[in-house]
Parts: sequence; structure tokens; C-alpha cells
Amino acid sequence: MAANSGRHFLQIPGPTNVPDSVLRAMAQPTIDHRGPDFAELAQDVLRRVRPVFGTDRPVVIYPSSGTGAWEAALVNTLSPGDRVLAFETGHFATLWRDMAEGLGLVVDFVPGDWRRGVDPAVVAERLAADEQHGIAAVMVVHNETSTGVTSRVPEIRAAIDEANHPALLLVDTISSLGSIDYRHDEWGVDVTVSCSQKGLMLPPGLGFNAISEKALTAAEGARLPKSYWNWTPILEANERSFFPYTPPTNLLYGLREALSLLEAEGLPNVFARHDRHAEATRAAVRAWGLEVLCADEREHSSSLTAVRLGEEHDANKVREVILDRFDMSLGAGLGKLTGRVFRIGHLGDFNDLTLAGTLAGVQMGLELSGVPIDPNGLQAALEVLRG
Amino acid sequence: MAANSGRHFLQIPGPTNVPDSVLRAMAQPTIDHRGPDFAELAQDVLRRVRPVFGTDRPVVIYPSSGTGAWEAALVNTLSPGDRVLAFETGHFATLWRDMAEGLGLVVDFVPGDWRRGVDPAVVAERLAADEQHGIAAVMVVHNETSTGVTSRVPEIRAAIDEANHPALLLVDTISSLGSIDYRHDEWGVDVTVSCSQKGLMLPPGLGFNAISEKALTAAEGARLPKSYWNWTPILEANERSFFPYTPPTNLLYGLREALSLLEAEGLPNVFARHDRHAEATRAAVRAWGLEVLCADEREHSSSLTAVRLGEEHDANKVREVILDRFDMSLGAGLGKLTGRVFRIGHLGDFNDLTLAGTLAGVQMGLELSGVPIDPNGLQAALEVLRG
Amino acid sequence: MAANSGRHFLQIPGPTNVPDSVLRAMAQPTIDHRGPDFAELAQDVLRRVRPVFGTDRPVVIYPSSGTGAWEAALVNTLSPGDRVLAFETGHFATLWRDMAEGLGLVVDFVPGDWRRGVDPAVVAERLAADEQHGIAAVMVVHNETSTGVTSRVPEIRAAIDEANHPALLLVDTISSLGSIDYRHDEWGVDVTVSCSQKGLMLPPGLGFNAISEKALTAAEGARLPKSYWNWTPILEANERSFFPYTPPTNLLYGLREALSLLEAEGLPNVFARHDRHAEATRAAVRAWGLEVLCADEREHSSSLTAVRLGEEHDANKVREVILDRFDMSLGAGLGKLTGRVFRIGHLGDFNDLTLAGTLAGVQMGLELSGVPIDPNGLQAALEVLRG
Amino acid sequence: MAANSGRHFLQIPGPTNVPDSVLRAMAQPTIDHRGPDFAELAQDVLRRVRPVFGTDRPVVIYPSSGTGAWEAALVNTLSPGDRVLAFETGHFATLWRDMAEGLGLVVDFVPGDWRRGVDPAVVAERLAADEQHGIAAVMVVHNETSTGVTSRVPEIRAAIDEANHPALLLVDTISSLGSIDYRHDEWGVDVTVSCSQKGLMLPPGLGFNAISEKALTAAEGARLPKSYWNWTPILEANERSFFPYTPPTNLLYGLREALSLLEAEGLPNVFARHDRHAEATRAAVRAWGLEVLCADEREHSSSLTAVRLGEEHDANKVREVILDRFDMSLGAGLGKLTGRVFRIGHLGDFNDLTLAGTLAGVQMGLELSGVPIDPNGLQAALEVLRG
Repeated sequence: MAANSGRHFLQIPGPTNVPDSVLRAMAQPTIDHRGPDFAELAQDVLRRVRPVFGTDRPVVIYPSSGTGAWEAALVNTLSPGDRVLAFETGHFATLWRDMAEGLGLVVDFVPGDWRRGVDPAVVAERLAADEQHGIAAVMVVHNETSTGVTSRVPEIRAAIDEANHPALLLVDTISSLGSIDYRHDEWGVDVTVSCSQKGLMLPPGLGFNAISEKALTAAEGARLPKSYWNWTPILEANERSFFPYTPPTNLLYGLREALSLLEAEGLPNVFARHDRHAEATRAAVRAWGLEVLCADEREHSSSLTAVRLGEEHDANKVREVILDRFDMSLGAGLGKLTGRVFRIGHLGDFNDLTLAGTLAGVQMGLELSGVPIDPNGLQAALEVLRG
Repeated sequence: MAANSGRHFLQIPGPTNVPDSVLRAMAQPTIDHRGPDFAELAQDVLRRVRPVFGTDRPVVIYPSSGTGAWEAALVNTLSPGDRVLAFETGHFATLWRDMAEGLGLVVDFVPGDWRRGVDPAVVAERLAADEQHGIAAVMVVHNETSTGVTSRVPEIRAAIDEANHPALLLVDTISSLGSIDYRHDEWGVDVTVSCSQKGLMLPPGLGFNAISEKALTAAEGARLPKSYWNWTPILEANERSFFPYTPPTNLLYGLREALSLLEAEGLPNVFARHDRHAEATRAAVRAWGLEVLCADEREHSSSLTAVRLGEEHDANKVREVILDRFDMSLGAGLGKLTGRVFRIGHLGDFNDLTLAGTLAGVQMGLELSGVPIDPNGLQAALEVLRG
Repeated sequence: MAANSGRHFLQIPGPTNVPDSVLRAMAQPTIDHRGPDFAELAQDVLRRVRPVFGTDRPVVIYPSSGTGAWEAALVNTLSPGDRVLAFETGHFATLWRDMAEGLGLVVDFVPGDWRRGVDPAVVAERLAADEQHGIAAVMVVHNETSTGVTSRVPEIRAAIDEANHPALLLVDTISSLGSIDYRHDEWGVDVTVSCSQKGLMLPPGLGFNAISEKALTAAEGARLPKSYWNWTPILEANERSFFPYTPPTNLLYGLREALSLLEAEGLPNVFARHDRHAEATRAAVRAWGLEVLCADEREHSSSLTAVRLGEEHDANKVREVILDRFDMSLGAGLGKLTGRVFRIGHLGDFNDLTLAGTLAGVQMGLELSGVPIDPNGLQAALEVLRG
Repeated sequence: MAANSGRHFLQIPGPTNVPDSVLRAMAQPTIDHRGPDFAELAQDVLRRVRPVFGTDRPVVIYPSSGTGAWEAALVNTLSPGDRVLAFETGHFATLWRDMAEGLGLVVDFVPGDWRRGVDPAVVAERLAADEQHGIAAVMVVHNETSTGVTSRVPEIRAAIDEANHPALLLVDTISSLGSIDYRHDEWGVDVTVSCSQKGLMLPPGLGFNAISEKALTAAEGARLPKSYWNWTPILEANERSFFPYTPPTNLLYGLREALSLLEAEGLPNVFARHDRHAEATRAAVRAWGLEVLCADEREHSSSLTAVRLGEEHDANKVREVILDRFDMSLGAGLGKLTGRVFRIGHLGDFNDLTLAGTLAGVQMGLELSGVPIDPNGLQAALEVLRG
């Protein structure tokens, strides 16, 4: 048993492995959030975070979890009783639906089998049917962290346009931002929701909203009560490089360093790396003789892979064996997938050999758990990695 | 000019100087927030944070600023249109009032001169007059960070009891918790609001609510919309040592270390240290021939001192000189005190010699700014420190 | 190419991967080396380092590289012109020989093929032939870092005893200490030489000498000039928990943490882990169809494995490919092994999945370099790891 | 008592307060000391350290204390039985003398009263009398850490030149380098000895030798045995940006950051800052009615001040009171000054307010110890600091 030596393998689909340089950056002394040094820091991160969202416009940063950024997207743009269109693509899409209802919105929730993303055809159909334009917003989870399925946002956008419908497009990029190609401006997204602990390679503690001009206009009439999440005072303060309340300085230090890392590698390279790691992971899963949960080739997630086990095996048992024997954390199946899948996170600060170690651990863990597999899985992955 | 060598003097009334060991604790790798190591961490901090609030009951921890914890106190206990009683003790009391109104509450705002705390007699009088018990809550800022005035919460409690009024007592301890004696349970507070970056010696990023049984009961009927701030799912998840959304793991590492520091010194010693530093600071201010803003001897803050200058001097100019020449940040006058006061923070991780250095910088800065002072101020402070 | 994301794989046979907690421990502020806090630190590490050497006696700690500790072993026990017996087991044994000659000693250097350790029979024979007891010391490298061969010290000790020869036994444990079973007292070693950056999991900067009673007596008559390396003032100062010159405080902080990690895992478990990783590595090498440099089954190193390539392949090219493509550092062939071998370090803070990642990188690198191998090597290693 | 809160005041004359950014730099993962990243680091620090010594020539860096660098200066340039001229300027000059004798050199030791530096007139006289040029080297401690006296190296150089004597000039700059103006090349020094933990703001663990052309020539004929300290293999390896033995990577990371800090402030500003702090300190000492140990106005140290107490007071008692009550470490009197002086370090990473805090602590500690002083000392220092 080597459980307590060497580095823990944190291969859940977030929080991800925080680079050493980000942790060190966060260990800088906290400074006066109203002084000139802070203003420089704020200006820097507020400007440099935009390209990661694919936007030229302001991005709001909250001291919050990603859940907070979900709430912010809703309370800034909508009013009590507003109708929104959402899709049951998995556990987090369901939670976001619950939140919307809790806040007093009416959700049209399109059922799903948790193996596919949002169907653009259904979007088109639902909006076309909504002749009175009663639907105020469409809520989409770009990359379902619970299933490893990536919805096709550009096609969804096209569907909305085709229906000539004025609904806002709200997109959760919590486990895709900084890992999978994403373009807030180009794809016409109105509010992009995200957080720090996935592709941005930070600890949890920051929530984000990227905001279109249209969303900002909608915010003027939105009547859900809000204070902490209110974009207006934040955007105003940000223009002077400050925040309306005490900002999470040390996480912003970390963000500055994380942005430097992303810029150094180059976003297209970051996305290509994740694509390649995802492909290698799927090669392993298939060679083992197991099934990837995602059922549509066009929707495979590049940041995580959910692996389905047959009814006769408990995925949580496999995860426990792997944690005990190999000091690796994998993601559990959530909601109705509990025990049926385990999830391999391959996002954030990650490289070929760590993926090889990860897949070796999964392979050995499956064998030790009595799941019958073909031992050529790892070798299949290496062939992809080797190129 | 020594501006860029040595350690910056961060003597604003928060964020405070974060101890090195807390920064190092926060630099530990982020872990699986659903795994056994996290459960241990969560259980530990959730239990050990209680004595700091003076409570035996659960304390809710948010990834948020203190402002978020303000909002949480309101949305969990109140309903749209509820009346609350608040007091204009300074800038932050005014902001909290604004928030309450923004969320749809009706605020009875008792005016004040920003030099005194909440008057228990006025509390008694207002509540006595409210025979229909239309006032749902009394909002009190324990230690006004903008003025250095500490309201007498036990007397306020007594006034409420005397009026035999059922209003909830909501108290902001943002700049008092962990610095000034405070007892949530003993003083009968219903919701105590606080945050990480002051007496808890952490960077900003955590908000707190300590909650009485009565507040929890009130929460059942409270109808302000809420999701992120909702106590119920958090308290439920906390019972299993988890959080309903991704918790700010690295700040919790820091909290664990900060609690160890407070426990090692002992809370009564921590409070006595702050009392002594505040007394030494006031001795300096008076010996300089200047005025402490706080007008009531019973209400002097032990965590910060606001110093009043005559109309002919701009306190912000003095602060600039001190920052430029001595690399020390002081707090600005806020709201209607802009330019009229500067604030010396002497809270958090702090000791006698750092206070001496701080007061030396203030003394030299006043002299360099042309404020006429008696140079015996520092010496007067040393006499207090020496004992 | 993933070269710049994720964690670098430092798989040279030292410096090894320093655990995060050791790096954080080293980041504590430097303190007064004559004050009470330092005395506590010194006492603690001086006591707790002994079991790692398998000794109950004092261990001297130098601010130096391991080379310095080599020199200390010689200058403290020997006089100009003294004869010593040494063995050409590899590059470092040769360098130590060079040092001894440079310091004015006469070295009987038994030639070797760099694939075997010290032959106890030759020790016995040489000492038996030395009837006048002209040989003052026997110099042995326990684990040759350049070849991955571990000499059998207990058998060497037995050979000396059998010859009834008074020579001192000086042993270099630079790449074995804390990784491979070693017992200074039980095996009758007189001076054990070591350093910080291998099994002790620290950065370079500390040298060590464990010293027998007999060595200490020899030191009284030793006439090689010495000052910095002189044991006497160090041992005297250490008794009062101080050092005769300014000690490397921050590395001692790191040492304290590293000792805690070794104690937590338990030395026997640490050794077993390294044995297992070495066995898995050899299984991979053989399955690839390549040759382990070490030619004697009884002498396989548990801390590193040197892999031999045929004349037609340049091992340094393979290393370059692996560094470029997989961000992994491997050890080069040294001295007469240049280009003929590469060395895989599997010592220090290390676990199963990191070994799997390491071997995956070697396998892919060999393939990319055109070295014909059987791709089942990694799988063979996993079978060992899985158990 | 505030002993355990806030930051310790480390005001011994070294080790000095290590800047946070240096500690963080040192916490970077150790890398392959034979790889390209290390070569870049080595090249960078080897080049950028030169201006700090005032030299255009190579500087040798040892993993060692400053004592090691003393030994290196001697063993590289001298032969057994060589005569050297040295001066009893204090404790460290005496220790260096002891080392020279221990290594087999013959020392002409000019007695002194530990209150003055090396007298250039005596240098001139001694060398003039040495008509046979039997004196191989002159050993000078630039800044005596035990007394706070700075010898006038340019005048000593002039005295040697005036005597037209070929002796090498060896200078210890352990507590002056990076704090007090120093010019290896311009002043014609042959070997400059230094270390990391004073003006270079690093933890202990690095020793330095700056080497003149003449010293390098002398080294060719020097016959003291040497291996670890031998300049030749180090200079050769450094040309290829490597080291002949494993270098202390993490301290080199720290050095790189420390050099950046010195460059950012500018060496002339660094020296001026120390001059000013020393002047303020002396102003306090005199205003207290106490005596500075240094007896010659031309020789006051800018990096530390030794304060003399009358026979009736034990300086170590004062230091204990200050450590207990104010958590500040001061330097003890060493050797024959034990109990007679305490030493205030004001070197390294330091600023006006920290000096004010330091002097406040000394003032209160003297009062609490019953040493009769005029309490205007601190105020006198502030007048200097305020300018």
C-alpha cells in the first residue's frame, strides 16, 4: 500500500489539481483592497480573464461558489414568475432547475436520459411554439459535470435565432471554461456562469458571470430581489478597479497566476491537450470493454469521462478500492447515476504521464474490484498519447 | 524612503495581517470535497469555530464576503415587507440598511451622529411603542468599522427583553469577532454575522452566520427568496461534514490554522491584548492633542481607532503621506467622514512592537503633513504598553 | 505536447520530488539560531534523525552537499599518507577515490565493471593480505547512484571481521538512506555519509555523518587539516542544541517535517514500498526486452534502476525525447556509461500511480526514439503493483 | 504580554528577516540540477550576484555557512606554514584567526580592543617591516558582527599598496554585503568572503567567494589540501552553468528573488537606507544616555549597532526581558563582550516603522530591566527617520 507517500491523484472533475505556482501566489500577504497595489491587481485580472470567456466585455467576479454564479445569472436578469426553458441533461442541470424554481421562476424542464446534451432541435421546437415569447430565458449546462456530456452551444444559439425568439441564453460553463473551447461573444451567449476550481486551476471560492449587452439591458427590468449578486454596483466599482465589498484578494492573486499559465500555454493548446486526453481516456475505456456514459459522439466531454458499469458492479466500491490502494480520488455517480458510474476528471493542470498514472490506477482498481476487463486499456490510451 | 523594503504595515481595520502559518496552511493542495479527508477538516472547523462566536450551536460558513453574510441573515429570517429597526451608527450600518431596503424590507432607521453606538434606551422606547409587534428584527452593528464605536449588545438585549418584544436580534460582528469579547448564546443574539478577514486573521472569502433556535424557527416562515444563502441545506449537509456546494477548501485550511492560533493564545488573552492596544492608541491620540472620534467612553472600540482632524486638515492627505513615506496603509474616512478622520486598525495578528511602529508612522506622518501635534504621543502609548 | 502543464516528473535518482509539506515547512521565517525556539528545533531533529541511520549515537549535520559529507568522513578520521581500500563500483565510487587522493590519501582501488557491488570476498582477501594493518579504512558506496547496484554492507562487515582487521568502515548512503534498509550500529559501520536530497525528501543542502565510537577515537589522532568539517566543535555545540556556525535553519525545518513523514509511514513500510517499486520497474524493463545494468540479483537497487541500451541507441537521445514530449527528467549515464544507460529514479516521496506514469513515459519515449521494445512492459509492472 | 501574536522581531545582526517573496521562491519544487531549467537559473544568479560584490569576475557559491567560505578563501590561496596578518577587531576576527591556525597557517595577530576596526597605519607598518614578503595574506573583517565596527577597506588597500607588498587581501563581508557599500574590484580585494543570511536576505546555507585574478594565480601554487572548497572544478562547471556537486537549488531560487529585490531598490538606495537606519539607531542610543560600542566615528556600522551597558547591568538580562515581553530577538555580546553589550541588527529587509518598533522595544526593555535611560531615545530616532 502506497497510500501515504507521493502526491495524491485528485482526478475528480473538479476541484482540480492546483498548480504549485498558483498556491504560492495565493500565499502572498493580503493587502489593502482600497489601495493602489490592489487596484493594479484588480485591473489586471478583470482585463485578462475576458479572453478565457471569449468576450470583450466585463466579467463579474464573486466571492462565491459556482452555485452563487448560477443564482447571480438568474436574479440579475429575471423577475418573479418568469418562465425559463431548461433541460434535464444531468444532475447539475437538475439542481439549477431546482434553484430557479426556489427563486420563484417557472421552469419548463425538458426530460432527458442523462446521456445526451441539449437537443438543438427541441430548443427550436419549444421556442417556435412559444409564440407569445413567454419564455424569458434558456438555461443550458455546457458541460454536464455529472455525465461528461458537452452540449453544442453554437447549434443551440442557431436554434434560438432560427425561432427568432428573444429569450436570453444562460450557459453554465463550470466544468468547461478553460478546458473546452468556449466563446461567449461569438456564440451569442447572454450570461456565462463559471467558477474557479476547474479549468481555471484555482481552489474553490470564485464565481463568474460574463454578461452580454442584451443581458445588461434585461437586468434593468429584472425584479428578483438582489443585493450581493447585483451586477450594477460591481460593474461600477470595477471601472475604478475596486469592488463594492471586500474582494477575495488571495484568490485573485491565484487567478492572476492561473491566467499567466493559460496565456503561456495558449488557449488553443489547452483545448487541444484536453481533447487529446479525453480521447486517450475513451480509448482506454473501450479497450477495457466498458462503456462511456455519453451516448453521442458529437458530445463527448474533453474535461471528464463518466464510465458505466454493469448492474452487477458498484462503482462506489471501485472508487473506494482505488482511493484505498492507489490514493486516487475519482468522481462518484450523482443522483440517479449513484453507484452506476464513476467519473474520471482529466481537466485543469494535467499532463500525459499523470493521465497514464490515472488510467493505470483505474485499470488496477477495476481488476482488484472484480470487474472483468481487458488489460489492454492503458496500452490503448498510450497509443493515443504517443501520437 | 524605505517604501519597498521590509514588511508593509497593513493597519487598516481589515483585512488584517494574515499570519504566515495561515498563509502556508492555505497553500496546501485542494482536496476532494466529498472525500474522507475533507470530512475531517469540515467537522473540525465547524466544531471549533463555535466558541469564537460564543455559541454551542451550528455556525454556517459561506464562500462570500461579510456582505453576503449580512444578506444571509436577512433572507433566512424575514419576508417581503417586514419591518426592521436599525440605527445610523456609521457607514456600514447605513449600507446594511440599504441592503435591507433593496431586498424589500421596511427599515425604521434611527438617525445618529456617527460617534456613538446604538442607544439601548432608544431600542427600549421604539420597541415599547411597537405594541403590535410589527418590528420583526433589530439590526445592530456591534463594532462600527467606519467609526471605531462598539455598541453595547448586552444592554440592547436587555432593552428588548424589557420591552417584552419578540423581534429577532441580528448583530454584525464583522470587525469585532475574535478581537472583542462577544457571546452569541449568553447575550441572546439571534443571528450573528461575521467574516474571515478581521479578527479571524484570514484573507477575505468566508462569511458566517451563527443562528439561535429562535432564528431557525423564524426561518421556517421566512419568505424572502433564497437559494445560495439558505441555511437549511447547509445545516443538513454540515451534519454529514459536507457542504451542499463546493466549499472554499483552502480558506477552510486557513481557518483551521487560525482557530489553532486563537486557541493557543486563549480568547480572553486575545481580547485583553486588543483592549490594551486600543488603550495605548487612544493614549497616543490624546497626547498628540487630537480627538478620538468615538464620543462615549463606554463604547471605545478595541479593534480600531478613528482619529478626527480639524477642518483645516485633509485626513486623506495624511494617509497618502504615510503610505508614500512609511509604506503603511491606514483606513480612510467613509461616507460623511471622508477626509475628516483616518482609522488605525489594531486588530488581528498584532503585537506591541508592531503597534509602536504603527503609531510612530502616524506620528511622523502627521508631522510631515503639517498637522500640529505634541510629539509625546508615541511615548504615552509606550507607557501603556510597558505597563 | 503537454510539456508545460501538470507537474514535472522528476525521476532522476535525486534530487527527488520534495513533498509539498516539506516545502511549506521550509518557507517558515528564519529564526535566531541562538534562541530557545531554535534549540527546540535542533534538539528535535538531531534526536529524530538517528533512527533513519539505524544508530543510537549522534549524527552530525552539515550545511553542505553530500560531497562535503564525504570529505568530512575522510578528514576527521585519517592522516596524510594513510592507505584506504576502495572499490570501482561506479562513477561516484570513483569520484570519492579522486577526493581521497586529492586530500593526500593513498587509495588501493579495486577495479570493477560498474555492474556489480563491492565483493566481500575481495575485501576479506585484501585485508587478510594486509598483515601490517596498513589499511586505515575501507570506503564503500552502499548504493551506487550511477549504476543502481547496492553493495551488501553486512557481508562486507563480516569480511572485515573475519580478517580481524582494524580498518574503519566508511559507507556512502547518499542514495540509499531512507529508501533502502540500512543499519549503522548493527552493521558496525564507522562513518555513514549521507545527504538531504534523496530518501530524506529534502532539497539539496544538508550533509550527514553518523559516527561510531571507534571513528570518534580515530578522530583524536587524525591529522588531515580540518575546520569546517571538524566533528568535535559540532558535537559539543549540538549537546547544547546549537551549532558552532550559523546552521541552515530552513532546511532543518524541512528535515523535521520529512522525519515526521518517514515516521508516519514507518521505515519498514518505506523500504518495502521502494522494494516493490524497484521490482515493478525491473519487470517492465525485462518485459520490454531490455537489460537492467545491475548484473547480480542480490544487488538490485531499490531506489533506482539503470537501463542498458544496445550500442546502436543513444540513451541521451531517449532522455531528451522523454523530457521534450513528456516533461520527465531521467538520469543520464555517467562517466563510462555516458549514452549507454538511462537511470530511472524511484526513490523518495513516490507512489504506485506516479511510478505507472513514469514507466508509461519511458515506454512511449523508447518507442518514439525507435528503440524496439515489447509494449507489454508497463503491463508487467502493473501486475507487480497490483499485487 | 503579546509574545505569541503578531510577527516576531528578528533584530539580531543576522540571520535577518527573509522577505516573504524569497521564502515563496524557495518553496518551488526542486528540479534536475543537470537539466536546462537549472542551467538557466544558475547562469542567471551567477551573473547577477556579481554586482552585489562590486565585481565583474566570477563569484563562487558554496552550499555552506559563511564559515565555509572563510575556509575556502584560505585553502585555495595558501600553503601549510604560510604567514598571514590578521587583526583582533572582535569575536569573528578571532575565530577566523583560530581557523587559520587550525589549518596550519601562522598568524600575526595584531591585538585590539574590540571597539575599533583595522588600523591602516598598522597594516602599512607591518607590511613595510616584512621586507622578505613573508606575509602571504592580510585577513580583514569588513564589518565586525560582534562589535558593529566597519573597517576602512580602501584605506587598508592603500596601505598595502604604499608598502608595495604582494600580500593577498582577504576580506570577510559576511555582515556588510548587500547592506554597506562594498567594491571588490575597485578596492583591489583578492578574496571576498560572504554568506546568504544577512544583507542578501536569505536563510543560511550559501557561502560565497569573489576572486581576483591575482588570487586565482595564487591558487595555482597553493598547497593546503582541498576538495569541496576547490575553486577550479566549480569555476569550470559554472562556465557550463552547472556545479560539480549537487547545488542547493532551492536556496538559489531564493537568491534569484533576493537579487531582484536588491536590483529593484537599487544598491545605492539600499546602502543609503541602512546608513539612515544606523544613524537613527545611534541617535536613540545617545539620547537614552547609553554608549555605542564603536569608538571611531569613521567606523560606525550601518548594519548593526552594539550598545554598551555599565558594569552594573547584565545585557543578557535585558535581552531576555525583551524576548519575553516583546517577542524580539537581539544579538548577545560575544566572547569578551558577553553580558556587556547587546546588538541591534538593522540590516536586510527592513524599513522605518520596523526600526521604530525595534527601538520602542529596546527602550521599554531597558526601562523594565531597571537600566536608567532618558525616554527621549525613540523620539530622537524618529527625528532622523522623519528627515
